[in-house]
Amino acid sequence: MARFIKDRSKSKGTAPGSLILIGDQKMEKPIIRLMEYDAENLIEKEIESIEEIISCKNSSKVSWINIWGIHDLDMIHRIGEIFELSPLFLEDLLNTDQQPKYEDGDSYDGFIMKMLRYNENTKNIISEQLTLVLGEHYVLTLQEQVGDVFDHVRSRIRNTKGRIRLNDNDYLAYALMDTVVDNYVLLIESVGRQIEQLEERIFHDPDRQLVEEIYHYKTEINYIRKSVRPAKDMMNDLFKAEQSFFHEKNRIFLKDLNELVLHATDAIELYSSMISDQLNIYHTNVSNKMNEVMKVLTIFGAIFIPLTFVAGIYGMNFVNIPELRYKYGYFIFLAGVVVISGGLLLFFKRKKWL
Amino acid sequence: MARFIKDRSKSKGTAPGSLILIGDQKMEKPIIRLMEYDAENLIEKEIESIEEIISCKNSSKVSWINIWGIHDLDMIHRIGEIFELSPLFLEDLLNTDQQPKYEDGDSYDGFIMKMLRYNENTKNIISEQLTLVLGEHYVLTLQEQVGDVFDHVRSRIRNTKGRIRLNDNDYLAYALMDTVVDNYVLLIESVGRQIEQLEERIFHDPDRQLVEEIYHYKTEINYIRKSVRPAKDMMNDLFKAEQSFFHEKNRIFLKDLNELVLHATDAIELYSSMISDQLNIYHTNVSNKMNEVMKVLTIFGAIFIPLTFVAGIYGMNFVNIPELRYKYGYFIFLAGVVVISGGLLLFFKRKKWL
Amino acid sequence: MARFIKDRSKSKGTAPGSLILIGDQKMEKPIIRLMEYDAENLIEKEIESIEEIISCKNSSKVSWINIWGIHDLDMIHRIGEIFELSPLFLEDLLNTDQQPKYEDGDSYDGFIMKMLRYNENTKNIISEQLTLVLGEHYVLTLQEQVGDVFDHVRSRIRNTKGRIRLNDNDYLAYALMDTVVDNYVLLIESVGRQIEQLEERIFHDPDRQLVEEIYHYKTEINYIRKSVRPAKDMMNDLFKAEQSFFHEKNRIFLKDLNELVLHATDAIELYSSMISDQLNIYHTNVSNKMNEVMKVLTIFGAIFIPLTFVAGIYGMNFVNIPELRYKYGYFIFLAGVVVISGGLLLFFKRKKWL
Amino acid sequence: MARFIKDRSKSKGTAPGSLILIGDQKMEKPIIRLMEYDAENLIEKEIESIEEIISCKNSSKVSWINIWGIHDLDMIHRIGEIFELSPLFLEDLLNTDQQPKYEDGDSYDGFIMKMLRYNENTKNIISEQLTLVLGEHYVLTLQEQVGDVFDHVRSRIRNTKGRIRLNDNDYLAYALMDTVVDNYVLLIESVGRQIEQLEERIFHDPDRQLVEEIYHYKTEINYIRKSVRPAKDMMNDLFKAEQSFFHEKNRIFLKDLNELVLHATDAIELYSSMISDQLNIYHTNVSNKMNEVMKVLTIFGAIFIPLTFVAGIYGMNFVNIPELRYKYGYFIFLAGVVVISGGLLLFFKRKKWL
Amino acid sequence: MARFIKDRSKSKGTAPGSLILIGDQKMEKPIIRLMEYDAENLIEKEIESIEEIISCKNSSKVSWINIWGIHDLDMIHRIGEIFELSPLFLEDLLNTDQQPKYEDGDSYDGFIMKMLRYNENTKNIISEQLTLVLGEHYVLTLQEQVGDVFDHVRSRIRNTKGRIRLNDNDYLAYALMDTVVDNYVLLIESVGRQIEQLEERIFHDPDRQLVEEIYHYKTEINYIRKSVRPAKDMMNDLFKAEQSFFHEKNRIFLKDLNELVLHATDAIELYSSMISDQLNIYHTNVSNKMNEVMKVLTIFGAIFIPLTFVAGIYGMNFVNIPELRYKYGYFIFLAGVVVISGGLLLFFKRKKWL
Repeated sequence: MARFIKDRSKSKGTAPGSLILIGDQKMEKPIIRLMEYDAENLIEKEIESIEEIISCKNSSKVSWINIWGIHDLDMIHRIGEIFELSPLFLEDLLNTDQQPKYEDGDSYDGFIMKMLRYNENTKNIISEQLTLVLGEHYVLTLQEQVGDVFDHVRSRIRNTKGRIRLNDNDYLAYALMDTVVDNYVLLIESVGRQIEQLEERIFHDPDRQLVEEIYHYKTEINYIRKSVRPAKDMMNDLFKAEQSFFHEKNRIFLKDLNELVLHATDAIELYSSMISDQLNIYHTNVSNKMNEVMKVLTIFGAIFIPLTFVAGIYGMNFVNIPELRYKYGYFIFLAGVVVISGGLLLFFKRKKWL
Repeated sequence: MARFIKDRSKSKGTAPGSLILIGDQKMEKPIIRLMEYDAENLIEKEIESIEEIISCKNSSKVSWINIWGIHDLDMIHRIGEIFELSPLFLEDLLNTDQQPKYEDGDSYDGFIMKMLRYNENTKNIISEQLTLVLGEHYVLTLQEQVGDVFDHVRSRIRNTKGRIRLNDNDYLAYALMDTVVDNYVLLIESVGRQIEQLEERIFHDPDRQLVEEIYHYKTEINYIRKSVRPAKDMMNDLFKAEQSFFHEKNRIFLKDLNELVLHATDAIELYSSMISDQLNIYHTNVSNKMNEVMKVLTIFGAIFIPLTFVAGIYGMNFVNIPELRYKYGYFIFLAGVVVISGGLLLFFKRKKWL
Repeated sequence: MARFIKDRSKSKGTAPGSLILIGDQKMEKPIIRLMEYDAENLIEKEIESIEEIISCKNSSKVSWINIWGIHDLDMIHRIGEIFELSPLFLEDLLNTDQQPKYEDGDSYDGFIMKMLRYNENTKNIISEQLTLVLGEHYVLTLQEQVGDVFDHVRSRIRNTKGRIRLNDNDYLAYALMDTVVDNYVLLIESVGRQIEQLEERIFHDPDRQLVEEIYHYKTEINYIRKSVRPAKDMMNDLFKAEQSFFHEKNRIFLKDLNELVLHATDAIELYSSMISDQLNIYHTNVSNKMNEVMKVLTIFGAIFIPLTFVAGIYGMNFVNIPELRYKYGYFIFLAGVVVISGGLLLFFKRKKWL
Repeated sequence: MARFIKDRSKSKGTAPGSLILIGDQKMEKPIIRLMEYDAENLIEKEIESIEEIISCKNSSKVSWINIWGIHDLDMIHRIGEIFELSPLFLEDLLNTDQQPKYEDGDSYDGFIMKMLRYNENTKNIISEQLTLVLGEHYVLTLQEQVGDVFDHVRSRIRNTKGRIRLNDNDYLAYALMDTVVDNYVLLIESVGRQIEQLEERIFHDPDRQLVEEIYHYKTEINYIRKSVRPAKDMMNDLFKAEQSFFHEKNRIFLKDLNELVLHATDAIELYSSMISDQLNIYHTNVSNKMNEVMKVLTIFGAIFIPLTFVAGIYGMNFVNIPELRYKYGYFIFLAGVVVISGGLLLFFKRKKWL
Repeated sequence: MARFIKDRSKSKGTAPGSLILIGDQKMEKPIIRLMEYDAENLIEKEIESIEEIISCKNSSKVSWINIWGIHDLDMIHRIGEIFELSPLFLEDLLNTDQQPKYEDGDSYDGFIMKMLRYNENTKNIISEQLTLVLGEHYVLTLQEQVGDVFDHVRSRIRNTKGRIRLNDNDYLAYALMDTVVDNYVLLIESVGRQIEQLEERIFHDPDRQLVEEIYHYKTEINYIRKSVRPAKDMMNDLFKAEQSFFHEKNRIFLKDLNELVLHATDAIELYSSMISDQLNIYHTNVSNKMNEVMKVLTIFGAIFIPLTFVAGIYGMNFVNIPELRYKYGYFIFLAGVVVISGGLLLFFKRKKWL
């Protein structure tokens, strides 16, 4: 399967808004976790049936409904009904190849983003789709599988004096999105560090393996770019939205978030051009090394091939080769060898090959 | 004939709006199929004479008139009269090299798009022109030949409970266009998968054939881009149109369609830059391999060429070569060979050529 | 003389609006042809004196005054007076290096365009400047020399039932401009076809000649681009003009013309990037072939150079070389040769060089 | 640690607006220096406690509070309270990887910029973050460590008749920012001079070291660009700000500053493309030199390898080699050698290899 | 000193608006020449003291004050006072590295432009700064040294019937600026011609010198671009200026001037991409030639190295080599040589190396 674009043949010929999972199912049974809090109280529990979350919708407390696993289409359908999500938005959240986007729903702000993670085994960056819905009093997040980057946010919620507890649900949504984007920058920093380290090897230990690594990083940077760049448009669409569930006073946080997105995309472009430069330099270095190899061969060849010919002459069996009969012929020959090879060495020195 | 641009010499010197087929005639007699439906009823038939379709125009049911074969200029002319299509639009639909466009007609919305298909024999992507006209109650589609990507849409129409049956003709037009664009993404996914697979071969089994394949995919990506990119402008023109036969409530579907077009063009750019990277990497690998080849030659040459010279010396027939008379001269010579070649091997080891 | 920019030193130090021909005089005496027509009548004649055309200006019929040869500065000056052309426009039309432009004159619309032709002898595309002036009832065209692409338009005028005869002079202007742009597309198609055919040779018969051809087409594409691209701006300026001699009802034709210009520029960019790709591929192929050549040399060298050394050993004249005295020494030597060369062949097979 | 992007893992999971230093602590105890002046008087002192600066805020004189060292988070927090800086701005000024920006605060204009310096030891350009706050009567600058580019400004303040003394604090802020940007241009000029000097070596003394230098300058240019380019946006944001603490009459200075920023970015792009050209030229030169090396080898090989073969023939021990018995066989052989090698030399001359 | 950016360290730490010459002093004593004219009269003289020009300012005739040499800072200061030039504009005119700009002063229009000249000795293009001030009745031009491109304008002024004499001072300013820009085009034409001529040599006489020339032209084109491109912005700023000393009726000349600037920048981009193509082609040609060289070596090597080995075999001194005793052994050997080399030649023919 292509890594950069997903096979959507399953959805071929279905009506728009049909609920079809594009991508792989990544876990067994979905897990639904709820955090419900205000400044004083915090309830944290795992809930069994999707129906239990209806109460959250009407509570005046802030609820964060966190769902791991989106392959249960009935559940997704029911969630759509409860939170009045548009059919197309449901279709988008199931399409794990959906580009990051902002949906300005009637009773919610919908976000589709990518969470990036580094897979230690494949050495690849992998991307997981995160859907975030911000409504009247709730934040709903949907992820493809267990595990995410939000543990720090959970601790901050548990901390009674944390700013999250004192704020509304839009602040929670901001905190989650900020965590996702912050993670982009962390990942770029980590890839960037490795790219900067290639530099040393390109000049002092270039081997064939290195090309593979350069290509690998080129691809990873492309992969990060693909996930991060559309987030710029998502932010722009959010800023242009006529009404949004972000309070006006928290707009400043969104502006800060936007700056972080821009910082990330700038860094991506920087490393992208750096890795291209490195490939060029590597290529030039390969040519340089070939040059050196060829010089060695040429020097050896140019000196000894003519000499061997001369030796061959005096190895011939003509009946009449006067030189062979000279008493010191051999020594004159040796002297000639010294003169010729010395001359050639001088010639190569003048050409700066030695 | 050029694949990327078609010969329009036939139209040279004709008045604008003249009906001339640019491109090849691809079938014998045009086939006209009609699907006429509302929520309860569906009539599906092949019609013989173009005059029969006049009734569709006035019926309050939704009619889909699907025409395969556009080379019958009289028929095209008559269709233009029946549906009040502008002469220039008729000229455009006959010019199979026409770029995708939206025409904001008085009594219709006209679309010219490209359907892409993969030809198993030539391994090329081929593009066929699709004209779609959305009028008061009808949708008219014109294609160059039999066979298209719309079979799924037909099944959905036949399904009494399908959403198409419950909606107006603009929804049908949307469903058709969505199918066309969805097909772009499927095709890009398929080409993209093959491009990603090249990567393995570039590093571990690069042969000359591979360059040809890389170029082939570069060209296919260019070909897809040529067909898909103008669809962005088409969508923009549609959004800016002052009046359109798309109902306001279905605008959300168009927005979704637009996102799909953008997703397709993004993926095209991504693979386009990936295949360029692959060519660069391949080239660097070729240089790397040449380096390796040269090292082998140089090592053999640098070791044996001087030795052969020395052997040549003692093969000479000078009357007086003192060494030849030594009893152990031969063995001293052999020892010298070992020393010299050992020294050279050490030298190459120090240079990291071994 | 530079082909892409013309020497304007003749105009150095003259006042703006001075009438100076920049470019070569290409014929002897200017030829002035007149076609004057309405729906019923057509007068077609060659006129001697420039003064005769004054009557055209006031006639209510459509007149097309077609002038071949612009080097007669007095004539140009007089034309400027008759049709009230601005001095700067006159200067521009004499400067055959003038970029395509639209001039929104008080009593006329002025256009400067490039007609492209393929010169069979030099295999180059050549560009000739066309000035078109659209006034109240007349169309005035000025060209550098005899011969143009308008013969089809002339036939259509002669055809009593042609649409041109039924329309005003703005339609004639449109027909002429459409012919010019149509010709661009024909030319691009022809160059494009040749570029696409290079592909075959790049992979299966690459020789040094090919680089020259690739460069040739790169240059021709640049040359076409230089002439065609500014036509986009010309069209934009025309659309933005506050008043123009194009009737509102014919605007649709201009839109069509504009689309054709865009189609042409898109095709130019496509072929431009294709020819660049071809050069890269060619270069990679050259490296590939060098690799192959080097492998042959290396295999021969690595096998026979050591063997020759061994043969050299037994050609030495040491008094005491025990092997030489063995009865089967020679056959043992031959067996050794087989073993060594077999081993080396195996080695090269393992390296996939064979 | 990556040089182009900083590790922000320390800030992971903290609330926005939390005060965390991203980057290294570069000195021990912060140093706070104050210059307080009007046209007549100047007080210049180092102050111990941050509380002393409260008086500055209310004084009608111009105060420049210059702080070296930003790692004391309590101090930063207190400064934020005194000058009513927004928490996000405080977070930004502590994040030394923050991109240059303008913050339009309620009671201040905040600027984050980069000061560039050339480190003689590492031969790298290093960037230090400068925060500048312009309020009612004060200018506050914060830097990461001791030492800056502002000594000239200090002298001008001490000069009673200097224009700074006669102007308000916005003029001081302008003078500081102008100094920072002027320093960019100085640095680019210095790097540019070195880049221009590479040219000579590329053509006349290209060695492997040179690639490393080319890459080095490519990287430095990238580094400068990263610091300077966002300053363009900073200036734009400032011009668009609805209210600002820059007086209208001093706007002309800002326009001048903006021009300097544009000049700097233009020069960066120029040198960036020049260094890329240099790498290409260098690579072409390497190929050229390899060509020359190969020619030498080929000429030697092609002349002497066939001759050696012929000598080998007459060194064979067949019982019946008629030529060997000719009296002048040897001399005929020598003549043959002269003829063959002369012919080959002629051949190479014709190929222009000699 | 860097050629593309000038050392401004002299201005370091000075107040903005300080008068400091950036760049070299190029002559001794400034020369001030005055042309004062109306339709009937012309006074032309060299004036000694700057104070004499005050009268010009108030005269109703047109005065052109032409100053060669800007290093006399007192004089510049006095000029600033007389013509009420802003201090920043004075600073800019002294900074000979100032980018071309338009300054919309209260009582003047200020222009800073670059005059380009070709230095025959260094084969470089050199740029000199021209400052042009257009006020109520005067035009003031300042240049770095004696000699300019304005001699033609002077002749036209001396010509009583010239259009300049009949027009106001804005027309004079236009004529001067037009001359400067016209000169750009002349220079580009001259460089372009040389670039087009390289083409021939790249294919038929490529030597190492050629790379140097290609790089040289690349640099010159960059240098021209640097001076010309900002003139586009200058023209735009002028068009947007709210009030200007150009009369409305002369706006058409400015439009024409603008077109010339655009023509120049287009031509620059064209030649810039052409010279890059040429470098690529050259590089490909170098590889092609190396290929050819390698083929020659390989053919010689592959044919004679095995043959030499065979000759070596029969030169061995084994006591028992049966073939040596055959009467016709030698002739069989020769026949074998013919067969082997014939076979190899066939092999190379099949590979298309011959």
